[in-house]
Amino acid sequence: MRYSQFYIPTKRDVAKQDSVNAYLLNKAGYITQIAAGAYALLPLAVRSIQKIEQIVREEMNAIGGSEVVFTALQPQETWEQSGRWDDPNFKQIVYLDPEAGMTFGATHEEPMTIAVKEKIQSYRDLPVVLYQFQTKFRKELRPKSGLLRGREFRMKDLYSFHPDEASHNEYYETVAAAYLKTFDRLGLDAYRVKASGGVFTEHISDEFQVVCPTGEDEILVDHQTKTGFNKEVEDQIPKTRHSKLERVRAIEVGNIFHNGTKYSEAFGLTYLSAEGSRHPVVMGSYGIGITRLLGTLAELYNDEHGLKLPVQVAPFDIHLIDLASEGKVGEELYQTLTQQGYEVLLDDREEAAGIKLVEADLIGAPVRVVHSHKTAQEGKVELKSRQTGQIELIPKEDLTSRIAKYLAK
Amino acid sequence: MRYSQFYIPTKRDVAKQDSVNAYLLNKAGYITQIAAGAYALLPLAVRSIQKIEQIVREEMNAIGGSEVVFTALQPQETWEQSGRWDDPNFKQIVYLDPEAGMTFGATHEEPMTIAVKEKIQSYRDLPVVLYQFQTKFRKELRPKSGLLRGREFRMKDLYSFHPDEASHNEYYETVAAAYLKTFDRLGLDAYRVKASGGVFTEHISDEFQVVCPTGEDEILVDHQTKTGFNKEVEDQIPKTRHSKLERVRAIEVGNIFHNGTKYSEAFGLTYLSAEGSRHPVVMGSYGIGITRLLGTLAELYNDEHGLKLPVQVAPFDIHLIDLASEGKVGEELYQTLTQQGYEVLLDDREEAAGIKLVEADLIGAPVRVVHSHKTAQEGKVELKSRQTGQIELIPKEDLTSRIAKYLAK
Repeated sequence: MRYSQFYIPTKRDVAKQDSVNAYLLNKAGYITQIAAGAYALLPLAVRSIQKIEQIVREEMNAIGGSEVVFTALQPQETWEQSGRWDDPNFKQIVYLDPEAGMTFGATHEEPMTIAVKEKIQSYRDLPVVLYQFQTKFRKELRPKSGLLRGREFRMKDLYSFHPDEASHNEYYETVAAAYLKTFDRLGLDAYRVKASGGVFTEHISDEFQVVCPTGEDEILVDHQTKTGFNKEVEDQIPKTRHSKLERVRAIEVGNIFHNGTKYSEAFGLTYLSAEGSRHPVVMGSYGIGITRLLGTLAELYNDEHGLKLPVQVAPFDIHLIDLASEGKVGEELYQTLTQQGYEVLLDDREEAAGIKLVEADLIGAPVRVVHSHKTAQEGKVELKSRQTGQIELIPKEDLTSRIAKYLAK
Repeated sequence: MRYSQFYIPTKRDVAKQDSVNAYLLNKAGYITQIAAGAYALLPLAVRSIQKIEQIVREEMNAIGGSEVVFTALQPQETWEQSGRWDDPNFKQIVYLDPEAGMTFGATHEEPMTIAVKEKIQSYRDLPVVLYQFQTKFRKELRPKSGLLRGREFRMKDLYSFHPDEASHNEYYETVAAAYLKTFDRLGLDAYRVKASGGVFTEHISDEFQVVCPTGEDEILVDHQTKTGFNKEVEDQIPKTRHSKLERVRAIEVGNIFHNGTKYSEAFGLTYLSAEGSRHPVVMGSYGIGITRLLGTLAELYNDEHGLKLPVQVAPFDIHLIDLASEGKVGEELYQTLTQQGYEVLLDDREEAAGIKLVEADLIGAPVRVVHSHKTAQEGKVELKSRQTGQIELIPKEDLTSRIAKYLAK
């Protein structure tokens, strides 16, 4: 991509924000604020989010999920039928057009349960596993921390339907394992943390938390087993584990819930067993905050110069700057690297060298390649790793083989 | 994809619907209705929509667009500032949470104009071209015709910002050409139709219409030049063209608008010219109804047996049925065809042959491959083109070379 044809509104000065991710993603031109708790994703963020979603998609497909896209719009009456409309915790966060009688999807248990009724008749139709990447709306009273707690955010939510508790519980563990693998692929070291279900369920649920000093949650973790406990379940922590637990701050990036038959019974979702008797379907819900993942990565992968997202989620692989040949060598390297499948941002603007170099660090592509008068004299280019800061001068013809070691995903 | 692990709720009987697309997409398990004018996209539709969006994305990138994702949430006060809040045409279609003071994106001129202020300072920063795939909400009084007129739908909207009328008008023609190319790639024969801007602009605008007997628009078209006129501009049609025009029904799949400086002036979006004087930016808006495209394709590509979407947007390339070898040959062909890059739906269910064959026609993959006792005796498989209905028996080892001619995209 040529910088001159791509929209990157970096900023020299940004007002202090309430979080590192809001400050850096704004300054580096990834996002812009539309309203309190509502951020537009600009082109750099769109590229990162698409990569994050593709990794999550692959892992959800691998555990038998079928991708759907439900509507945000949900009739208010379906929330009354499930009993959630009378839950004050929900009522205060749900956007509603009272005249139209429509709510805006804060979560999707109701329409999913209603929808699968057209498929699930007998035990042979189970399990059903549906997931989506969807925009969620929640009227946060105190939206804060940039992409970490917003009023509108992108979420991957998966819903699973099973004949009984045993098969649900088995699948619940399958999802938990897939979640840990997903976060690991994204460059996040997630802990599985026991939690109460909050407003979602009366059953115990699990959260996936990433340890981060700026996180809003306070949890107790065991670093050896990568597990932990939410504050709300403290009284349930076995005494034998107390000595191994450390109190840390963390960001919740995913959660999984056991819904039992709450929604199946509300909407009459039953199936005929092999023995010919009718039973309510057992359901689970599983969420990953997609935009929050980008916020979390920004909180963890940065330094005083800007962002340094992991290669698998960075918007570009290579930031290419030609300061010496009126763009000729830059264009040549751009063609070569692009043809080899690398995603290259070529800074083809008429700007001062200092500005270009500072912006490369701010945006944070894993590799920066600079062709300057100094490197040109030796027939070399400068290669810098954003992660380590290490710089090396290498012959132009060795660039592509050398670059591969920095960009293994 | 194995059918048993994929969610396809086909239906034997579907109540009569108000449109062919609602009826067929519902019966074939592509969509399900959540509320009046709100349809969930099920896995088959998600696959088609992703292919449609990728074609649109490629064409928007080719004309210099940078992809963004803005929020649906927009502060009511920004609509008051642009003057659209007082337009009764808009007020009645916009979902609003009055308590939160937030509207739900019916269109995005306001936030786009406000956002680009952080980038556009001088003439050197122009043009700016942003586009997004976004969910739009419009409180249709009479939602109808399935995916053709809904309360919530997916849209590609592009916004362009220029220094003056001349450069805007030039880009407007660039987008018009890109739209015709996009629709052509999708298998749609679109006409460029002069129209009034309706509630969007006082300027003349263009619509892109696909001739379809079930369309809700009535337009006058010249089949030779592939152009036409909306009813609203009839009095502006040159007399010399009257004899060449035919009155037809059509579906509007895209539209492009000249906004002039309406939004720039409302939000103070100006730039410094090379001569050092300050001017308001000239803006254009360009929409394509993404979910409506799927509805339009379903209206046009079908027969009495079901859907037959073009190969470039069909959810799968090949529908594979093995009726003879307890799944052995089916599995073998599935592996071979998948490894060659084809998207194959293998019907691995325990269902009657008749049901499987009927469903293949209903879902409408471009190629159906059947291995049966009859074909097995000769070492052959049956290959059927969904588009032409033509059937041929070919040796198993010739399948992959033969199939390529049906699946050129």
